[in-house]
Amino acid sequence: MQTDVPVITITTDFGHKGPFVGVMKGVIASRAPGATVIDMTHEVPVHWPPEAGFWLARSYRYFPAGTVHVAVVDPGVGTERDILIATTDEHLFIAPDNGLLDELLHAAEAPVVYRLDDRYRDVLNLPAPSNTFHGRDIFAPVAATLAAETDRSGMILRIAKPVTEWTPGWIDPPETRAGQVRGQIITIDHFGNLISNIGAELLPGDGAPVARIAGRDIPMEETYGRAEPGKMVALVNSFGVVEIARTEGNAAATLGVSRGAPLVISLTDG
Amino acid sequence: MQTDVPVITITTDFGHKGPFVGVMKGVIASRAPGATVIDMTHEVPVHWPPEAGFWLARSYRYFPAGTVHVAVVDPGVGTERDILIATTDEHLFIAPDNGLLDELLHAAEAPVVYRLDDRYRDVLNLPAPSNTFHGRDIFAPVAATLAAETDRSGMILRIAKPVTEWTPGWIDPPETRAGQVRGQIITIDHFGNLISNIGAELLPGDGAPVARIAGRDIPMEETYGRAEPGKMVALVNSFGVVEIARTEGNAAATLGVSRGAPLVISLTDG
Amino acid sequence: MQTDVPVITITTDFGHKGPFVGVMKGVIASRAPGATVIDMTHEVPVHWPPEAGFWLARSYRYFPAGTVHVAVVDPGVGTERDILIATTDEHLFIAPDNGLLDELLHAAEAPVVYRLDDRYRDVLNLPAPSNTFHGRDIFAPVAATLAAETDRSGMILRIAKPVTEWTPGWIDPPETRAGQVRGQIITIDHFGNLISNIGAELLPGDGAPVARIAGRDIPMEETYGRAEPGKMVALVNSFGVVEIARTEGNAAATLGVSRGAPLVISLTDG
Repeated sequence: MQTDVPVITITTDFGHKGPFVGVMKGVIASRAPGATVIDMTHEVPVHWPPEAGFWLARSYRYFPAGTVHVAVVDPGVGTERDILIATTDEHLFIAPDNGLLDELLHAAEAPVVYRLDDRYRDVLNLPAPSNTFHGRDIFAPVAATLAAETDRSGMILRIAKPVTEWTPGWIDPPETRAGQVRGQIITIDHFGNLISNIGAELLPGDGAPVARIAGRDIPMEETYGRAEPGKMVALVNSFGVVEIARTEGNAAATLGVSRGAPLVISLTDG
Repeated sequence: MQTDVPVITITTDFGHKGPFVGVMKGVIASRAPGATVIDMTHEVPVHWPPEAGFWLARSYRYFPAGTVHVAVVDPGVGTERDILIATTDEHLFIAPDNGLLDELLHAAEAPVVYRLDDRYRDVLNLPAPSNTFHGRDIFAPVAATLAAETDRSGMILRIAKPVTEWTPGWIDPPETRAGQVRGQIITIDHFGNLISNIGAELLPGDGAPVARIAGRDIPMEETYGRAEPGKMVALVNSFGVVEIARTEGNAAATLGVSRGAPLVISLTDG
Repeated sequence: MQTDVPVITITTDFGHKGPFVGVMKGVIASRAPGATVIDMTHEVPVHWPPEAGFWLARSYRYFPAGTVHVAVVDPGVGTERDILIATTDEHLFIAPDNGLLDELLHAAEAPVVYRLDDRYRDVLNLPAPSNTFHGRDIFAPVAATLAAETDRSGMILRIAKPVTEWTPGWIDPPETRAGQVRGQIITIDHFGNLISNIGAELLPGDGAPVARIAGRDIPMEETYGRAEPGKMVALVNSFGVVEIARTEGNAAATLGVSRGAPLVISLTDG
């Protein structure tokens, strides 16, 4: 399916210095004029695909069916790593085969995954790509072509081949054992909230769950707002995962915790 | 009135980490496909509505008539705070009722203000919102629906009720007394210029006004360019308020001054 | 020539605080509704036109023919400096006459350059500009008008006069002598890669070139990926200039080098 106005999202670790994201949008404007191009984020930690994959997996449903999502967090650019095209749930994803899409593909229903092959250059009439900027030379033109194309499935088969294996993710999924869930902090948002990979569906069902992080026990609440200012709270955030926050404060600064920190949820009376 | 291409601006304190603004744009793309969505800024100080309101009040006139302006600086998200919809001067504003819109509404001619009520969920066919991300779950779909709607007044009345009171602003307006004007620094821009809430219309009319800040007297000039490099100047900036700048330098760093600092304008020979 | 959907790029040193870029886009939305507006970058070093000009010269070809490129890095705003409009290669550029466009115009084939004159206000029906925000008051409306105009050449002649001279660039071009090329670091990207002004076409033709910077000799390679992690490499990057990188690391931090640092490329056996 496809919306009338093609929608493309871009997720990178390029930051905002230099014209790198802008140039990708220039290439897109040539091949899919009038498309709506949306910045998902360009502040993924440098060369760290797991965060890009984490957010993509939890964000794509908020975009129109037919959206093309491009993610370029690509420490292997210029080496022999593959590029994946995946479709699921009426959304289309393009990313390096470096584990970035693994979490999304595991959670998806019946994803279909392809590996871009060298035919793309002939079909899209592209010169040889540079060694260092595939976002501009491969990802952007492929994304724009697919976004603008009526017969997407047909176009995918002209430039890619189905695969059933891909590079696994870099982060262990949360582990449930003896009434506890063990996960980790995936990212820290602009407010200093610590966002984990522990989904609400993994929480212990009965009793009052408590989050343990950095040697502190933090009770789970339902919202920031009901706690008194300065209090640490754990809650299921709007993306369905456990988040540690400080009401009207910065949890990351308070706890001195960063990405990768372990988080354990258990029952107080367990 | 409404332009042919709906225009929506977004002002937040979300920063650029994570997909938060992007996801709001995804929701907008579903309900107002093809709309022009413009980032006003996402670098409002965290949980500080006055700066968002200050910039909105001084910027909205530069957008096409019919523009929908969404501002989400919302420390009370998840509590019982209301959401306002306001129309004035052919522009439409949506923001939490936390004082953000107060300055704009005071300055506006004949604003009409509404409070969003729970009917919006049925009318817009929306699930219950999360407790922590109303930008995605309420503000974006309401803004997109109103932006795309031909009969805006009718739609507003289906989801909101007129009100005549709202939460007052957090910052005292400038005070004029004995030929002096006392205000404060509202924000510091990327160049280190100190931007105050003292409007040009409040300046003492006769003689040579001088700005007093951080113990220094700074004469008012007409432009940066006519002062010698390194010189501190005070001027009425392009948004009609007094600004303290250092020619080819950074006034904030030089003075060691930050947001909230008092600024007094008086006449040298007063 | 002109695309069906007008495309406008914006390059500034405004950063992301405050509504400055957003307001420019508001003005554009009024005069060129539905245009695609692309942020090239807003993180050009404050008041440093050479970096804006460097990126524009190397990026514009990736945008559709007919794109209008606006660059506002303008330390002389409010003084008597001129504004240039330039056309080359089916692209159109608008920038202050402060050297920003010099590199681009030197490299371009048969550029045609104009100086904006005061007729623009009558033709575009604009009020007197502020002294401090020509991005909003002049650059944005001129760019949008030209982007939306079918007869661009005619419109340019109504608001500007041809010129054959303009302010020279601020950075010396690379110097070739005795088999060596001497240039400098123009900018450092988000990854810490050092990007120089030495184009691939200037490299010594035979033998193995070595880059000398900060007292170190760094061999030139073809891609980041083939070097072992942590190794310093020099390569021709995707914009055709020599770049110093550290594989899976940050070259700028490692070398302690910043913008302006000299870089010499020579042959090991030269």
